[in-house]
Amino acid sequence: MQKSIAELLQEETFLQEVTVKGWVRTFRANRFIALNDGSTINNIQCVVDFENTDENILKRITTGAAISISGILKESLGKGQRIEIEVKNIEILGDSNPEEYPIQPKKHSFEFLRENAHLRVRTNTFSAVMRVRSALSFAVHKYFTENGFYNFHAPIITGSDAEGAGEMFRVTTMNPEKIQKDENGNVDYTRDFFGKETNLTVSGQLEAETYAMALGKVYTFGPTFRAENSNTTRHLAEFWMIEPEMAFYDLDANMDLAEDFIKNVIKYVLENCKDDLEFLDQRYTKEEQSKPQQQRSEMTLLEKLNFVVDNNFKRVTYTEAIDILRNCKPNKKKKFQFIINEWGADLQSEHERYLVEKHFKCPVILFDYPANIKAFYMRLNDDGKTVRAMDVLFPGIGEIVGGSQREERLDVLKEKIKTLGIDEKELWWYLDLRKFGTAVHSGFGLGFERLVQFTTGMGNIRDVIPFPRTPQNAEF
Amino acid sequence: MQKSIAELLQEETFLQEVTVKGWVRTFRANRFIALNDGSTINNIQCVVDFENTDENILKRITTGAAISISGILKESLGKGQRIEIEVKNIEILGDSNPEEYPIQPKKHSFEFLRENAHLRVRTNTFSAVMRVRSALSFAVHKYFTENGFYNFHAPIITGSDAEGAGEMFRVTTMNPEKIQKDENGNVDYTRDFFGKETNLTVSGQLEAETYAMALGKVYTFGPTFRAENSNTTRHLAEFWMIEPEMAFYDLDANMDLAEDFIKNVIKYVLENCKDDLEFLDQRYTKEEQSKPQQQRSEMTLLEKLNFVVDNNFKRVTYTEAIDILRNCKPNKKKKFQFIINEWGADLQSEHERYLVEKHFKCPVILFDYPANIKAFYMRLNDDGKTVRAMDVLFPGIGEIVGGSQREERLDVLKEKIKTLGIDEKELWWYLDLRKFGTAVHSGFGLGFERLVQFTTGMGNIRDVIPFPRTPQNAEF
Repeated sequence: MQKSIAELLQEETFLQEVTVKGWVRTFRANRFIALNDGSTINNIQCVVDFENTDENILKRITTGAAISISGILKESLGKGQRIEIEVKNIEILGDSNPEEYPIQPKKHSFEFLRENAHLRVRTNTFSAVMRVRSALSFAVHKYFTENGFYNFHAPIITGSDAEGAGEMFRVTTMNPEKIQKDENGNVDYTRDFFGKETNLTVSGQLEAETYAMALGKVYTFGPTFRAENSNTTRHLAEFWMIEPEMAFYDLDANMDLAEDFIKNVIKYVLENCKDDLEFLDQRYTKEEQSKPQQQRSEMTLLEKLNFVVDNNFKRVTYTEAIDILRNCKPNKKKKFQFIINEWGADLQSEHERYLVEKHFKCPVILFDYPANIKAFYMRLNDDGKTVRAMDVLFPGIGEIVGGSQREERLDVLKEKIKTLGIDEKELWWYLDLRKFGTAVHSGFGLGFERLVQFTTGMGNIRDVIPFPRTPQNAEF
Repeated sequence: MQKSIAELLQEETFLQEVTVKGWVRTFRANRFIALNDGSTINNIQCVVDFENTDENILKRITTGAAISISGILKESLGKGQRIEIEVKNIEILGDSNPEEYPIQPKKHSFEFLRENAHLRVRTNTFSAVMRVRSALSFAVHKYFTENGFYNFHAPIITGSDAEGAGEMFRVTTMNPEKIQKDENGNVDYTRDFFGKETNLTVSGQLEAETYAMALGKVYTFGPTFRAENSNTTRHLAEFWMIEPEMAFYDLDANMDLAEDFIKNVIKYVLENCKDDLEFLDQRYTKEEQSKPQQQRSEMTLLEKLNFVVDNNFKRVTYTEAIDILRNCKPNKKKKFQFIINEWGADLQSEHERYLVEKHFKCPVILFDYPANIKAFYMRLNDDGKTVRAMDVLFPGIGEIVGGSQREERLDVLKEKIKTLGIDEKELWWYLDLRKFGTAVHSGFGLGFERLVQFTTGMGNIRDVIPFPRTPQNAEF
């Protein structure tokens, strides 16, 4: 098997003949080809003997062209690389007309690159982001597997709409030109593919609970959906979520897991994506420099990542957080858009960022939230007004994890469902878990793209997923 | 951290005090609790001193109840286990009323268990299947990561409908009660969430090609959808698919990869899921024994798995296969439902099974299919009538992998698209890959559930995914 550029750049045996295929990044002085094959952010330098090379070939060595190079692997005398290839033969596999190729060796705006999402991964920034994304994804599976969790594939199409985590997309095969109605003039969903109304999942949690109560520790890692008209740098209509769910875990064990998990996956990429992270670190620093002094991050990207790995997350109750916020300067000076007056207020992004970035200056886990601002399935505390919920808040990102200990008591859960006006029949199977062998259990959800954003330092969530889905945009 | 039953059963240090939480599988003679926590198919035997235990507690130790046991880990004198716990204390965490609990310690039909998909994973068979499924999933990620592939998340909601791999589900936020029409009376998709008609993906391949042509080797592992009214033991409306895509790979390299990949992931579960596979092997053997002699498998489940790992897949051209089929007994005796007369016929499941199970008696890779029965993106051979397609056929399963070398030549691809009446504009980004730095590339798709079926010996695909989606069925 032919070696990748990542492998060739590690070679210790010089003077061997090698063949390498890749895409031209730059061609300088009719002599130096910087060749990349995607296996690493680093190019391999291929030195062309232009005097003895067909001019028609030389002309076709343009940015983006696919070529195959055979030559001798040599120690490089030039600066910037340890190794280079003395080219013996060049074959043009696929041309790239410089007049037409959108990805030229210059700075392109992220907006422009989003419109060319099929080509943007050919740039240094996006290839680095996507390699880190891939490594994070593997780190997730590795962490859970090594810690006794089973991967569980939650259903994507769901007939259950009780979770209420957000607006849903409907899934249907009914012809919108002629929707079939029943005798009362209502849409006749029995004619639809699944014989009922179905939607795209907003969370696999409820189903994951059924598996946790049998396999002990499980996790999902799959796409989830929100049909919300949010055009922000933190929201996608389609995103990937990681949801572990553990029998016999209380909220403390849940918080321990969330912290250990995040630290471990970041550690994994620090160890396995050095070159990509160094590049992204420099990019981040440059971007920060273009901001006004007071908006700049105090740490470089790598410093931020190491900080998360090395420091304990601060655990703070909601009640403590409200006290801090009520008495803080921006609240008193009415700098917050939403002024915090009373216990019970829902925290906005500005408050979370204040706590994390200004007050504690480290990742924060808020817990024990008021029951009425949290989901129905969270376990009620003995005070009768707070629930065993937790959110992990990250600098620059805000909420990265939301979780809870689940209400395991059938009577309390039924009461809650009734109060909210949810039909018990909708949740018969969820209630069964409390009828038959119920136990303390907990879990959380982590938005994968927010983790990728944090790890790569990318400001816009649309730039950390290959083909972002947002309102009015489902190109490709 | 408290140890799982899987860990306790490995313990070498006896007489230590342990606490374990799990669910009661059986309670025998008021003395022997078989406790399971999902970490392994094996139960731990907990020996109760019933004379000194509160009768009210004893009564509540019923199948399915969640309990916490503290006691001393001891070498077992009984048959069937090496280790047991001498119970010192029992706490009932959650009762399970034997009158109501559906999962009793007896044989339930798979139909019944499908209706109780939220509880069926509490049985030995389904917990084993789902642990093997999880291990296979990890093996997939491990194999690709170790072989230089990057994981790529293909979009689930797609505005592109050119692939034509099957009927699609529409994704919409339009209110079916009042579909908005434009001035010509047509559905006004510009009012829909994405401003256009969108569907659930049938394959991430086309998008994966964009990433392969930048990162070199990528793979997707995500849900895909078919809105087909197929009520068979081999079809789901929602299933998980693995799609690797590799730049600079021709069809031979593609076949090599498919074979090596399948062997490796099966090897992984053979090494890592011994207990579950042994259980499933026995289950399979019992099931086979209930069949008429001539329908029985010649091999046990474990023999089949080892056979796949140890033997080369037979590679046969479509043309050779047609010759074999045309001259075989069942064709001549008109035992096939579809008689093979001529070159160009599409192979049905019965033909594929004949080749694999009767003729070659091993996994088979068929390749070089007639162009007109395969997808538009497959590379045309020089003969002008076959394409570089391949299908991997497995005993008992049929097609488990479908792949091809992709058409990398812009002019040939455009011609094909034109012939099929597909609008070039729909595929502008796909064609761009052939305009800018095109190269030979290949890939394949593997239906994950079929792999799980093969590995676990389960006959119905609905029994290898947690919550199956099929026509008229999206419960849970």
